[in-house]
Amino acid sequence: MADTLVTLTTDFGPGSCYVAAMKGALLSVNPQVRLLDLSHAIPPQNLVYTAFFLRAAVPCFPPGTLHVVVVDPGVGTARSILYVEVGGQSLLAPDNGCWTCLADEMGGPSRVLRLAEHRFWRAQVSATFHGRDIFAPTAGHLSLGLDPGRLGPQAHEWVRLELPRPRLGSALLEGEVVFIDDFGNLLTNIPGQAFRERQESAVAVWAGGKRISRCVNTYGEAEHGTLIALVSSVDTLEIAVSQGSAAHCLGARVGMPVRVGSG
Amino acid sequence: MADTLVTLTTDFGPGSCYVAAMKGALLSVNPQVRLLDLSHAIPPQNLVYTAFFLRAAVPCFPPGTLHVVVVDPGVGTARSILYVEVGGQSLLAPDNGCWTCLADEMGGPSRVLRLAEHRFWRAQVSATFHGRDIFAPTAGHLSLGLDPGRLGPQAHEWVRLELPRPRLGSALLEGEVVFIDDFGNLLTNIPGQAFRERQESAVAVWAGGKRISRCVNTYGEAEHGTLIALVSSVDTLEIAVSQGSAAHCLGARVGMPVRVGSG
Amino acid sequence: MADTLVTLTTDFGPGSCYVAAMKGALLSVNPQVRLLDLSHAIPPQNLVYTAFFLRAAVPCFPPGTLHVVVVDPGVGTARSILYVEVGGQSLLAPDNGCWTCLADEMGGPSRVLRLAEHRFWRAQVSATFHGRDIFAPTAGHLSLGLDPGRLGPQAHEWVRLELPRPRLGSALLEGEVVFIDDFGNLLTNIPGQAFRERQESAVAVWAGGKRISRCVNTYGEAEHGTLIALVSSVDTLEIAVSQGSAAHCLGARVGMPVRVGSG
Repeated sequence: MADTLVTLTTDFGPGSCYVAAMKGALLSVNPQVRLLDLSHAIPPQNLVYTAFFLRAAVPCFPPGTLHVVVVDPGVGTARSILYVEVGGQSLLAPDNGCWTCLADEMGGPSRVLRLAEHRFWRAQVSATFHGRDIFAPTAGHLSLGLDPGRLGPQAHEWVRLELPRPRLGSALLEGEVVFIDDFGNLLTNIPGQAFRERQESAVAVWAGGKRISRCVNTYGEAEHGTLIALVSSVDTLEIAVSQGSAAHCLGARVGMPVRVGSG
Repeated sequence: MADTLVTLTTDFGPGSCYVAAMKGALLSVNPQVRLLDLSHAIPPQNLVYTAFFLRAAVPCFPPGTLHVVVVDPGVGTARSILYVEVGGQSLLAPDNGCWTCLADEMGGPSRVLRLAEHRFWRAQVSATFHGRDIFAPTAGHLSLGLDPGRLGPQAHEWVRLELPRPRLGSALLEGEVVFIDDFGNLLTNIPGQAFRERQESAVAVWAGGKRISRCVNTYGEAEHGTLIALVSSVDTLEIAVSQGSAAHCLGARVGMPVRVGSG
Repeated sequence: MADTLVTLTTDFGPGSCYVAAMKGALLSVNPQVRLLDLSHAIPPQNLVYTAFFLRAAVPCFPPGTLHVVVVDPGVGTARSILYVEVGGQSLLAPDNGCWTCLADEMGGPSRVLRLAEHRFWRAQVSATFHGRDIFAPTAGHLSLGLDPGRLGPQAHEWVRLELPRPRLGSALLEGEVVFIDDFGNLLTNIPGQAFRERQESAVAVWAGGKRISRCVNTYGEAEHGTLIALVSSVDTLEIAVSQGSAAHCLGARVGMPVRVGSG
């Protein structure tokens, strides 16, 4: 446990002084802690983005990893901070639902605690920066081998974040864009398997007022600039432009409807 | 000392090849060095931003940390590079004042040296990239346990950066915005304590031509989009918009006047 | 070898969930691996930028470093992934030429292998994310001491990327901008030595329709806002604006012609 890897995910902005302060606070508790940046570029206060991010990243990590997630529009209010165990890994996250999609995907949490023991926090806790004052020192203590059971009482309910569900009919698949990556690729909530089954027959995808008839396995199959539909690396329908940006091409936003039907 | 943590703060840009080169140069001297990115997103050549950044971040770190700070518009000119000890930590920084506010805050430097011993530098020192050629190898040697006294002679004076001071009258507090974070929150130079005392009576804050009457303890207390005044995580008056950007809302820039008076 | 430092360079975007997933996949193979971010801000699919980036950064690293480079527009197609040894360091990179300029600079590769052994890959390899599914687990195994010879057969040919060459006449040096850094400095392909020789006589530089007559050793020599020509930190002609952006001032793009002639 003294060799716990601690990852950091925040919406503070890459290079923010708040990230630096959090790292310092963590190292002040455990100067030997192994730190790893996951992302500090989560769009501010965006819980849906965070939910998708965690679901794409956390399952790739080995058991024993501790993920500190500070996307926390409710900082300083009565919202709790939770310690969660799921699939052999653990998280510290605000009780705002950002972690529940991940947990659903990984078979549900095996333990959820509500942080309550001030002795593991900074002596002075500010009302606006719990990343530095609660999350970081708590992670430091956990990385030193603290029994999580001492953090606070068990939680029996928590805020859940429900991502929009697709409607999967026999003739039509209806979903929406749930994530846009830095290439401008559009990840939808339509399962890859449902799309693959339709792909065997003639199929077309509609999004942003356009019909996408080019269904491929990977980006490089199509000529530059072609709108394509494919199965994403997280096994959902993805809309992309070969060596370009589908977000730009379709003026796409998260929430944009996507339909799959016969060609 | 062989386990010194070395942090890096530059204005090179996240993902810059100059950051990568610096890391390589440091690892070439000490392949086992423990490196930590603080920020590479300091606005180019912005010493005031750097001063604020260091003051917010460095005091959170444990004794023994070595901070390498390369925000250095004078690179290659006659300006010196300094080794500074303050509060049990140490810094390598250009002699341009970026570190003096931090040192004032931490009780003043206990030791300041002027780098002079070329034997700890790269064999070929370029005129434009001392981060790679002087800072990184020097940090590498320090992380291996080099006695700092061998770096060069003691410095008896250095460039100081004076941040603007607020005027704290009994009726009126007058200050200015000194830092804007990535959320668009405006941090001022008005001490939190002075604001708190006024808060007990009816009080209002003026900034950017607007009157801010909503004084809160934390962001989540106000409805989305409300302009609020609160005490920041570095204990100064902060102006924010709940789940929004005060910088955008007020068209704010560093240096914008802020006043606190009776409501 | 169990202490191999593994660096990561991608075009996924700083804070991308794909970077996070790659780190997790690497740590899942070797939970003790020492990871270092070089850059995740390579412009999407930009092989020329990647070539310059690697050439500026990799030679600064110590022997034994393993660099994982995922700038891979051909992901999922028939393009290979290569293991390359050069100058005592090693790389995993797509066979798209992004590494050949670096290798030329360092005396040519001493070994090039074509990845073929699926047993070192993720059980399920997606068609769109080889960073997570092939590069990361392979790097994990190498960092644990795997004999590279087991990765796949020797490669005898590979894609080469040729950067534009300057024309160096006795009267005129003609080249172009090959890289623009985050400060907006323009790095050209004109060798520093050729420029230095001309500098002894009266010389002028033309770029973007402007004549640059101010030749200096370093940025700080000129007044703020002055267009200057100097030798860069990678020993080529550089065009800059003192405390400003030459890219902005000249409307520069990579490929913009640059000429050096008598003043």
